[in-house]
Amino acid sequence: MLKKFINDPEKVVDEMLEGFLEAHGNRIKRLETSRAVVRREAPIKGKVGLVTGGGSGHKPAFIGYVGEGLMDGVAVGNIFASPSAQQIHDTVKAVDGGKGVLCVLGNYSGDIMNFDMASDMAKEEGIKVEQVIINDDVGSGSRDQMKNRRGVAGEVVVWKLIGAKAAEGANLEEVKKVAEKANANTRSMGVAHSPCAVPSMKYGGEETFHLGEDEMEIGVGHHGEPGVEKTKMKTADEVTQILAEKVLEDLPFKTADEVNVLISGLGSTALLELYIVYRKLAQILKKRKIKIYRSYIGEFFTSLEMGGFSITLTRLDDELKRLLDAPANSPLFVQA
Amino acid sequence: MLKKFINDPEKVVDEMLEGFLEAHGNRIKRLETSRAVVRREAPIKGKVGLVTGGGSGHKPAFIGYVGEGLMDGVAVGNIFASPSAQQIHDTVKAVDGGKGVLCVLGNYSGDIMNFDMASDMAKEEGIKVEQVIINDDVGSGSRDQMKNRRGVAGEVVVWKLIGAKAAEGANLEEVKKVAEKANANTRSMGVAHSPCAVPSMKYGGEETFHLGEDEMEIGVGHHGEPGVEKTKMKTADEVTQILAEKVLEDLPFKTADEVNVLISGLGSTALLELYIVYRKLAQILKKRKIKIYRSYIGEFFTSLEMGGFSITLTRLDDELKRLLDAPANSPLFVQA
Repeated sequence: MLKKFINDPEKVVDEMLEGFLEAHGNRIKRLETSRAVVRREAPIKGKVGLVTGGGSGHKPAFIGYVGEGLMDGVAVGNIFASPSAQQIHDTVKAVDGGKGVLCVLGNYSGDIMNFDMASDMAKEEGIKVEQVIINDDVGSGSRDQMKNRRGVAGEVVVWKLIGAKAAEGANLEEVKKVAEKANANTRSMGVAHSPCAVPSMKYGGEETFHLGEDEMEIGVGHHGEPGVEKTKMKTADEVTQILAEKVLEDLPFKTADEVNVLISGLGSTALLELYIVYRKLAQILKKRKIKIYRSYIGEFFTSLEMGGFSITLTRLDDELKRLLDAPANSPLFVQA
Repeated sequence: MLKKFINDPEKVVDEMLEGFLEAHGNRIKRLETSRAVVRREAPIKGKVGLVTGGGSGHKPAFIGYVGEGLMDGVAVGNIFASPSAQQIHDTVKAVDGGKGVLCVLGNYSGDIMNFDMASDMAKEEGIKVEQVIINDDVGSGSRDQMKNRRGVAGEVVVWKLIGAKAAEGANLEEVKKVAEKANANTRSMGVAHSPCAVPSMKYGGEETFHLGEDEMEIGVGHHGEPGVEKTKMKTADEVTQILAEKVLEDLPFKTADEVNVLISGLGSTALLELYIVYRKLAQILKKRKIKIYRSYIGEFFTSLEMGGFSITLTRLDDELKRLLDAPANSPLFVQA
């Protein structure tokens, strides 16, 4: 069992949400009809509405990114479970300012089914809805199985970019193009040495997967899905080399490319370790003459208390650089 | 053993620092003479220099808070070990813009000894140096043993407040007064259910303390120091009630007080749990008619991968409210 400070495993998401709204209610609000949060000022006239959603347990994702220059609304699922079509539909409706709504979601069958249904419902009501599915995880399928690849921390990068684009006043088609471009140029891969636990008992939950005392799993998914290889522990430099090569060769990233780097801890890995990883990654990129334009190092997309991290690279053009640099301000992501 | 992504236990701090400077070198620089980081533009003429420092392993503390509206320099110790007097002295010297330097440190004997020596060295060179020792941890001593109390996450609140004060152009005496006022009005208490490990092997380290499968420790220190009570696991609400009462009754905080709330995860506790804690804390404060002026929920002062959290309350007056609201921008703390 992994210990947790909770009250009732059935209530963790609702109680979390209560606390979240208590803390950030000056900037976001909860829908009356559904478990979903939107920006306080939603719907914003003349701006494309941006919606995402997914299972809970990935904080700061998803709800931490509802704010200026980021998302307008998030449908909140149970731990590691998709929100319902009704929740998503209500969120879409709440953020539609007349310019249409873009839904961005990770490539998970439950999410896709529910977002599809929600889109159909919204379209029947005359709301313009478009959808982009993120599948940045190199660890979840080979290049010729792109459609099987899951969405992981790359989603955060996409949210940042489309958030800036929508804030510039772009129309739905333009914002959608940025999401597709960002997704097409983003690759991620993760590693874990320790599992997380979905709350199931009064004081914790059972581990979602098992690794030996000296083992780690390369390519692990954000819910503990099996990766590409279970192996003995390696040094930070060795692990970074493995992940970086898989990520770099997949797109592939090439000499003279400019990239955004996002290193996200999965939950319990110390920030100190993430900087040791970044040190090695910067060396690798320098050697290949790939320029780091910007970097984010911290916890951006977690899996409860999983021990590990993911590396995400995004190839940037001038438009994406401008959008990346734009300010953003949400409860859990601030860029001044 | 707790697994870690490192290369060599002897090199974790230097390699972390290399990565940190690679990522944030546009805003901070490392001293050539000592393991210390200062703002790129240091020394800033006409501004009081602000220095802190301590052991590594508490990220985002300490170096994550070097930036605009925050600290000017940080001396970087080994994991959980004080930086040397020489490191601190060099940091003080590097940030002195002629208006004097305020050193703020946690109440630990090693830190105090080295900061004292560093101050003496700097004073001999004609630098005006003042010092404020933070001792917000209610769990580390009774009210009549105030001098024994350690500094914990309350240090972050003090840094934020004096950072804003110094940025306003206040003189050394005025900034020092804010530090003393902030410290006098700040109380913290922590709890942990899982230990951390100081890196000592190629892939990890041994746990710094032991707790049973169903145990937690109330009042635990930031390095695993024993707290006030080892007990069976309790619910988030029960634990929050215990910590809140200890903190509230110590100052004491009273009806109509306005407070800042800081809830800091200690490393591996999920953000989701911290919001459940915040929910209960807000209820407790509401019942006592204590008003939450502002709140910070996340990881602000950690202990590697320790499982647990701390609650910090600061009673605010108009000056502290203004300083709290001021913008700040450092690699790991941004307030827009």
